[in-house]
Amino acid sequence: MVILINFTEVGFMTKVFAYAIRKDEEPFLNEWKEAHKDIDVDYTDKLLTPETAKLAKGADGVVVYQQLDYTADTLQALADAGVTKMSLRNVGVDNIDMDKAKELGFQITNVPVYSPNAIAEHAAIQAARVLRQDKRMDEKMAKRDLRWAPTIGREVRDQVVGVVGTGHIGQVFMRIMEGFGAKVIAYDIFKNPELEKKGYYVDSLDDLYKQADVISLHVPDVPANVHMINDKSIAEMKDGVVIVNCSRGPLVDTDAVIRGLDSGKIFGFVMDTYEDEVGVFNKDWEGKEFPDKRLADLIDRPNVLVTPHTAFYTTHAVRNMVVKAFNNNLKLINGEKPDSPVTLNKNKF
Amino acid sequence: MVILINFTEVGFMTKVFAYAIRKDEEPFLNEWKEAHKDIDVDYTDKLLTPETAKLAKGADGVVVYQQLDYTADTLQALADAGVTKMSLRNVGVDNIDMDKAKELGFQITNVPVYSPNAIAEHAAIQAARVLRQDKRMDEKMAKRDLRWAPTIGREVRDQVVGVVGTGHIGQVFMRIMEGFGAKVIAYDIFKNPELEKKGYYVDSLDDLYKQADVISLHVPDVPANVHMINDKSIAEMKDGVVIVNCSRGPLVDTDAVIRGLDSGKIFGFVMDTYEDEVGVFNKDWEGKEFPDKRLADLIDRPNVLVTPHTAFYTTHAVRNMVVKAFNNNLKLINGEKPDSPVTLNKNKF
Ligand SMILES: NC(=O)c1ccc[n+]([C@@H]2O[C@H](COP(=O)([O-])OP(=O)(O)OC[C@H]3O[C@@H](n4cnc5c(N)ncnc54)[C@H](O)[C@@H]3O)[C@@H](O)[C@H]2O)c1
Ligand SMILES: NC(=O)c1ccc[n+]([C@@H]2O[C@H](COP(=O)([O-])OP(=O)(O)OC[C@H]3O[C@@H](n4cnc5c(N)ncnc54)[C@H](O)[C@@H]3O)[C@@H](O)[C@H]2O)c1
Repeated sequence: MVILINFTEVGFMTKVFAYAIRKDEEPFLNEWKEAHKDIDVDYTDKLLTPETAKLAKGADGVVVYQQLDYTADTLQALADAGVTKMSLRNVGVDNIDMDKAKELGFQITNVPVYSPNAIAEHAAIQAARVLRQDKRMDEKMAKRDLRWAPTIGREVRDQVVGVVGTGHIGQVFMRIMEGFGAKVIAYDIFKNPELEKKGYYVDSLDDLYKQADVISLHVPDVPANVHMINDKSIAEMKDGVVIVNCSRGPLVDTDAVIRGLDSGKIFGFVMDTYEDEVGVFNKDWEGKEFPDKRLADLIDRPNVLVTPHTAFYTTHAVRNMVVKAFNNNLKLINGEKPDSPVTLNKNKF
Repeated sequence: MVILINFTEVGFMTKVFAYAIRKDEEPFLNEWKEAHKDIDVDYTDKLLTPETAKLAKGADGVVVYQQLDYTADTLQALADAGVTKMSLRNVGVDNIDMDKAKELGFQITNVPVYSPNAIAEHAAIQAARVLRQDKRMDEKMAKRDLRWAPTIGREVRDQVVGVVGTGHIGQVFMRIMEGFGAKVIAYDIFKNPELEKKGYYVDSLDDLYKQADVISLHVPDVPANVHMINDKSIAEMKDGVVIVNCSRGPLVDTDAVIRGLDSGKIFGFVMDTYEDEVGVFNKDWEGKEFPDKRLADLIDRPNVLVTPHTAFYTTHAVRNMVVKAFNNNLKLINGEKPDSPVTLNKNKF
């Protein structure tokens, strides 16, 4: 006698449930689903909360991404629904109650690198735009002033570009700037041997500040780096310097940069990250009172380009975030070693 | 007996007079003056006309740059002032009455190449901005909508970039795009042997249209190239193509591009040159009736970037235009062979 069992119907098919899926993530989720026809994939656009946790009931793992805290209650509700394998589509894990996660036996993964190029390209394009005085020209076009003078551009190839931090992102940025023909110099507390052989490194940050026409930050915001761009470092820089921060807000003393912009010392400023961005970025303030006057002033300046922490936001990056998170989750479920497991130790709760 | 002669006072010092000098040209004019202390340099912001020709009296040569015609009357007035050595700071010579110039024994020079990078960089930056949906994000920032979704970018490195014309500008554009990590393919009726060895060339324009995600034009507007971008060629292209024209307006059938933008076939369009630009570009229309509805519509689209033929307009280019024109003029005066003499043969008059 042969017994046919339909694993899907009796619930034996592996199931992954995803939270907070945005429209722009759907194509990549569907791509993964197509490539894994034996896996049952379901998702919601809702965030993971104590209430929505039960949506995952019957799943073997969840794929998540949110700024909202993964609280003890949320984790408990998820465990109650039978799920303790959780894969983040992003890097950051400081919004997870790690003690609770440990207590409940959670296994967690993240996606630490999804596209250095997304950030490096954005930094390069925005720096080039500031040099070109593009925003001024765009504003002239919008009001139908089609005269070109005096909105003259500086070519990227004529610049000495100083790169602070030669990690994943800094290195891609260097290649892009060299493609333009710029002279690239760099500083890092840990010198990359290959880059060192090619002679990119200057001896100190001071040397970089003195020589560079464009300075781009690609370092983490560890305490030693907080406000590394300040009145003193700006004073060391060349007149007409362009400063680019697509890294982390706290690296830059915003008031010092504003003083530099006002005096004309700084030619332009690219700001994708801002020390006071939490609670302001990624929200719609149209028609409402804008909560940060200093930020509003920066956004409106013709030689400042502000973006709301979107340097990472490309189809390439989003695809990697989705696909890598689902791959990680499947590995957790299958008892294999995931590519980027998260160690459950730090805790802000 | 020794007689001291002050050549300046008795007018023996070589003198160059320059017309239509803009504010942004002054630093480079002064740089040339500094480097040629034995030459008397004087200038005006006025155009060269039959009336202003007499300002050049006593000069050995003039340096000029204007859209306004160099008419028979103007050339005659200049010859009457004793000047027949004329150096253009730009390329174009079709506004010179060549027959009259020949009759009066004029010697003329121009500056055919001042900065291929100025144009190539502009084309690259604008293409990258369209891929990023930068204009949409800038507009959101301006009205205080700081949400990132759904304004997602496409990375340059993920694109197949098709370059039509691998001359001075096209080659620089290729290097920039490769710095970003893009795959570059090219087409030219005359293949550059080095580029051919490296395998850049596809066999036909049709092949390029079929394969490229970004298509950038760097060819002259000889009759064979007029409206090379039209309904038929657009139909051959990939869905979501980005078209870049920083070359010459007549290369593109603007109505066909608008149809492609409306249907969604074309993801975005970069337009630095426009088939109907004469009389509209480089004028201030603010507060006046704008003369071209089609152009106004293009300027206002979020996926179109229009600039008024400013791709050339960089400090590097302007410096070269000034310095090369003065160098040419001095060579004419000294009876040496200038770098780029103009043959006096074509005539539209
Ligand atoms: N804007 C965005 O959307 C976005 C997205 C992802 C990452 N980032 C930020 O970009 C930065 C760089 O990321 P990455 O992936 O290249 O990191 P990485 O770890 O690969 O490289 C960082 C480099 O900085 C160096 N460094 C640290 N402190 C330094 C100092 N004081 N001076 C010089 N060098 C120093 C390190 O030795 C390392 O080589 C990080 O701060 C990250 O948070 C921003
Ligand atoms: N926007 C601006 O401000 C600006 C400034 C300067 C020049 N330009 C324009 O840029 C264009 C390129 O300039 P350049 O200095 O590189 O010229 P170039 O003469 O160095 O190169 C042009 C190339 O196009 C090729 N070509 C001609 N017709 C072709 C066709 N049908 N298909 C493929 N290839 C073809 C030629 O063989 C040549 O290699 C010119 O049209 C020029 O007018 C624009």
